[in-house]
Amino acid sequence: MTTEQTGFHIGTLAIVGVGLIGGSFALALKKAGVVNEVIGVGRRPATLERAKALGVIDRVATFEEAAGCADLIMVSAPVGAFEAIFSALSPNLNSRTLITDGGSTKGNVVAAARLALGTKVAQFVPAHPVAGSHESGPQAARADLYLNRQVVICPLAENQPNDVLYVRDAWLACGANLKTLDVTVHDEILAAISHLPHWLASLYVAHVARQTNAPTCLAMAGAGFGDFSRIAQGSEEMWRDIFAANREAMLGQISDLHTLLNQAESALRSNDMTWIETMLTESAQVRRQWGEGVFREG
Amino acid sequence: MTTEQTGFHIGTLAIVGVGLIGGSFALALKKAGVVNEVIGVGRRPATLERAKALGVIDRVATFEEAAGCADLIMVSAPVGAFEAIFSALSPNLNSRTLITDGGSTKGNVVAAARLALGTKVAQFVPAHPVAGSHESGPQAARADLYLNRQVVICPLAENQPNDVLYVRDAWLACGANLKTLDVTVHDEILAAISHLPHWLASLYVAHVARQTNAPTCLAMAGAGFGDFSRIAQGSEEMWRDIFAANREAMLGQISDLHTLLNQAESALRSNDMTWIETMLTESAQVRRQWGEGVFREG
Repeated sequence: MTTEQTGFHIGTLAIVGVGLIGGSFALALKKAGVVNEVIGVGRRPATLERAKALGVIDRVATFEEAAGCADLIMVSAPVGAFEAIFSALSPNLNSRTLITDGGSTKGNVVAAARLALGTKVAQFVPAHPVAGSHESGPQAARADLYLNRQVVICPLAENQPNDVLYVRDAWLACGANLKTLDVTVHDEILAAISHLPHWLASLYVAHVARQTNAPTCLAMAGAGFGDFSRIAQGSEEMWRDIFAANREAMLGQISDLHTLLNQAESALRSNDMTWIETMLTESAQVRRQWGEGVFREG
Repeated sequence: MTTEQTGFHIGTLAIVGVGLIGGSFALALKKAGVVNEVIGVGRRPATLERAKALGVIDRVATFEEAAGCADLIMVSAPVGAFEAIFSALSPNLNSRTLITDGGSTKGNVVAAARLALGTKVAQFVPAHPVAGSHESGPQAARADLYLNRQVVICPLAENQPNDVLYVRDAWLACGANLKTLDVTVHDEILAAISHLPHWLASLYVAHVARQTNAPTCLAMAGAGFGDFSRIAQGSEEMWRDIFAANREAMLGQISDLHTLLNQAESALRSNDMTWIETMLTESAQVRRQWGEGVFREG
C-alpha cells in the first residue's frame, strides 16, 4: 500500500476517543512513521492514561488544544456522541486542521458536523473503517487493525480535493483499502451487512436466554452458536447509537427480512421442503462464494 | 477421558456414511486403539474409495455384511435417510450387533428405527455429537473432532443397560463429554442452539443476496458478517432434513423469536432506545459469560 502523495506527513495527530478504532489509527500511523506526535483527548482520564502507558498516545490534551494545534483530528466514539465532540472542537478549530472519523454511521455524523461546525464542516472528511472487533478500549488497539481492510471515505460537497487526498493518505498509510461512497448509500449498505447481523445476533441470544431451559441450552451450545452470536458481545452503548442513527435504513432492512422470515415459516408449516431447500442452496452458494473472495473488488 | 469399562474393545466397526461425522468416529476409535477393523458402507462408491484411500476405513462392505458381522454400526447420514438405512440393515442384523448414530435430530431417527427395526430397536442406542463443521466428506474427518465436545446419548426404554454402556464407551474413547437427554428434550434444545441459528443465518444471507445492491454489500462485508453467516455454508440436503425432522420444535422456536423480533422492530420504530439498550445489554452479557464458560457443566 503506498500513499497517493509522496512525502505525506502528519505533525500532530489528535485522537478523540482512544479506544480500539482511534487507538489502532494512532498505532498504524506511528508504525508507518508518518506522524511526529499523537495527542489523546477523551472524557475518561483513566482511559487516556492507559492509552499513554500503552504507547498509543504520547500525551493527554484538551479539546481546545487539539482543535488549535493538530494537523489531523480523528474522532472515534459512539455515534451519538459526535455532536458534543464537534461542538467542543468547533470554537478553537484551526483553519488548517482537518478532521476524519471512525463512526459506524455517516448520515447522522455528517448532520452533527454541519450543525456543530457550520462552514468549518469543509474541514471534515468522513470515513468509516469496516474493521473492528467485539473487543474495545486502548488495550485492544493494534497497528494492523486496518491492514487490507475496507475503509469507506464519504467526501462532502464542501471538502477541498486536497483535503480529501490528505485524509485518504492517512488511511492508506494504515494499510487500508479505500472505497468512496455517498453518505446515504454507505448507511444503507452498512445496515445490510453490519447493523442487521448485530441486531439479529443480539435478539437471538436474548431469545435463547429467556427460554425455560436456557441453562441447558447454553451449556450445550457449540461452535456454530459461538460463531453466529460472537458479534452480540459488542458494546451496547455503541450499538444503541448505531441503531438510533441508522433507524430509517434499519427499518427498511427489518421489514424486508421479516417478509422473508414469514415466508420461510409458512413454508416449514406447510412442509414445503422444496422452498426451503432452494433457499438453503442459494444461501450456501452465496456464502461459499463470499468466503472464496468471488465478490471482492480490485 | 477414560472408558467406563476396562478392556473396552470393538472387533469390527461399521460406518454407514463415511463423511465428516462417521469418518471422524472411525479415526478417533482407530487412534484410541480400541478397534480391530473398520468397514465402510454407503451409497456413493467414489466416497467409499476416497475414505479407504485416506485410511478412514479399512475396506468397503455391503449393508448385509455390516449387519451380520459388525460389533458396532455407526450410522451417519442426513436424517431423512435413516429409515432407508435401518431397513437395509434390519433383515440381517446380528442379535449381538449394536447400532449408534450421529444424526442431528433424534425424534424422527428413533421413530424410523422403531418402524424399520421392530423389536431389534433395543439394539439401537441413539447419540448426537454436538460437533461438526461446515466442511463435509471423508477428507474433512479428523481423529480429534469429538475431543472435549458434547455428545448426547438418548437411551431408549428398550435398551439393555450394558448395551448403553458399550455405546457410551465408544464415544468416551473418542474423547467426548457425554450427556444423557430424553429424545424430545434433545430436539427442543437443539432447535434453539443449532437449528434456529442455521435457519436465521441462511435466511439472512438470502436476504442480502436479493438486495438490489447485493454485489456492493458482499464486496464490503467484513469479519462480523463472516462469523455470523459461516454456518449457512452447511450442506443444504442435511439441513433440509433437519428442519423437516424437527419441524414442531422449530415452529415453536420461530414463533417465539418472531414475537421478540416484532417487539424490537416496534421499539426501534417508536425510538424506544431504552428497550433496545436493555436488550443489547442482556444479550452481550449472556454471550460474554458463555464465552467465559460460565454455563459450562462439570
